[in-house]
Amino acid sequence: MAEPYAALVPLRWSDMDAYGHVNNVQYLRLLEDARVIGLREFVPDWSAMLDEGIVVTRHAIEYHQPLTYRHAPVQVTMWVTRVHGAGFDLGYVVRDPAEVGDRVYALAETGLALYDFAAETPRRLPPDARRALAESVGDPVAFRRPAR
Amino acid sequence: MAEPYAALVPLRWSDMDAYGHVNNVQYLRLLEDARVIGLREFVPDWSAMLDEGIVVTRHAIEYHQPLTYRHAPVQVTMWVTRVHGAGFDLGYVVRDPAEVGDRVYALAETGLALYDFAAETPRRLPPDARRALAESVGDPVAFRRPAR
Amino acid sequence: MAEPYAALVPLRWSDMDAYGHVNNVQYLRLLEDARVIGLREFVPDWSAMLDEGIVVTRHAIEYHQPLTYRHAPVQVTMWVTRVHGAGFDLGYVVRDPAEVGDRVYALAETGLALYDFAAETPRRLPPDARRALAESVGDPVAFRRPAR
Amino acid sequence: MAEPYAALVPLRWSDMDAYGHVNNVQYLRLLEDARVIGLREFVPDWSAMLDEGIVVTRHAIEYHQPLTYRHAPVQVTMWVTRVHGAGFDLGYVVRDPAEVGDRVYALAETGLALYDFAAETPRRLPPDARRALAESVGDPVAFRRPAR
Repeated sequence: MAEPYAALVPLRWSDMDAYGHVNNVQYLRLLEDARVIGLREFVPDWSAMLDEGIVVTRHAIEYHQPLTYRHAPVQVTMWVTRVHGAGFDLGYVVRDPAEVGDRVYALAETGLALYDFAAETPRRLPPDARRALAESVGDPVAFRRPAR
Repeated sequence: MAEPYAALVPLRWSDMDAYGHVNNVQYLRLLEDARVIGLREFVPDWSAMLDEGIVVTRHAIEYHQPLTYRHAPVQVTMWVTRVHGAGFDLGYVVRDPAEVGDRVYALAETGLALYDFAAETPRRLPPDARRALAESVGDPVAFRRPAR
Repeated sequence: MAEPYAALVPLRWSDMDAYGHVNNVQYLRLLEDARVIGLREFVPDWSAMLDEGIVVTRHAIEYHQPLTYRHAPVQVTMWVTRVHGAGFDLGYVVRDPAEVGDRVYALAETGLALYDFAAETPRRLPPDARRALAESVGDPVAFRRPAR
Repeated sequence: MAEPYAALVPLRWSDMDAYGHVNNVQYLRLLEDARVIGLREFVPDWSAMLDEGIVVTRHAIEYHQPLTYRHAPVQVTMWVTRVHGAGFDLGYVVRDPAEVGDRVYALAETGLALYDFAAETPRRLPPDARRALAESVGDPVAFRRPAR
């Protein structure tokens, strides 16, 4: 199993909504940024996969504490939670970086699938990528509520 | 069981990302708008609940087809899927309005909890609201992938 | 001179920022939506121009009153304020629709230029389009502060 | 005259629109972030002004070159361009940081006014703040098109 990858994702003041907290939808924007920052280094052959086409098939996210804008980034820890023939799942913890504190703001999971945009059909993971990803599978996300 | 409520939610051109499709994160923005448009009419005592404080505790969303910006709105059908002591869950289908087509773009579910912002603690659903919501509980969301 | 075109642009709850008003940046998002909704009907040959490539070269916007989210859309009145060899300017008033009230929230102007994305160079307005646009030029935007 | 302040503002992948460039509206989001990052250090008494209430009264922005998402931030250089009884103007250059390149993407200016939110009226700049700001006034923004 590979180590989780920790991306530092800066907040924007505009991530807050009229309640004065980072809006629940913007957390998924932070996850997107974490993937853009981190997957290239973290997932074997990510650049090739991305160039050939990859789509988000699902998200699940659980909010644990409110987050208010501050200059310090959040840390998004990411790891592979599942691999299947056409893609894989990523788990995340959104938390304070160690030097800021120890609050956990959210847990989340994203399903990713390889996709052929020209043919508009799913693609198979090449055997090498599948094997490499399978070796890096970590723990399931520790959601409070196990079933969806 | 109450009928699902169908909110018409306009798209924005900027909902599309660099791939030319409505971005996966923006779907949750559409759900937010559907709640803002619809819950006031749909959920018993919603205005009172909202004034007293309500928070999103989780989202689950599954993407079924890509959606491209068009002038016609999407229809977001919403219904209550579960009620518990401190809140309730909403199910959604994001689809074409009948006069536009029959495509289903996404299924989703949101957990909502009553919250006392001043005391920073969860609140209990008043018995009347809980009873009214319980009577309106509909089918579970027909996610492709049952377990989170 | 052509009549100004009035686009009705729906607000989103998320257009508000932590101050509880529609954020100043989001006004430009509303103008974008107004152009997407309206220019196709309003500007001669807009579809052809858009297909061939058009870019925003500048914006100027003046905020007159705070706007809070409400279900009713805002009305964005648009007209051509200037035509030149490589593009044209649009003026806007962001206001309440007549049935909602008479508040003016903002005045704005956008510079648009034809652009050849493949060659990465500006293009000239075809003489017919230039003539048609020139005939529709209306008053300058009545900014409070005349000089930039 | 004070030195301009240079804020490094990270991009987000989602700043790009369906044309694959950072969307023109998002530039104003980058300016907002630059103000949030920089004004506290840059403008005398900014924290006090902000706590007492400050609003954006206008923006003017000129786009010089397309910007595509990249990991490196943009540099937003900011300085005071004008001071008056009720507020002041800020000029900006959005450019590559020196270690990335020398491209200038946009020039912009924002009008800011002190505002009493409770009374819903403008406020006067305290004489000390006005004097300090006046001493820091720099060159006008070198817009290509001098008049608005």
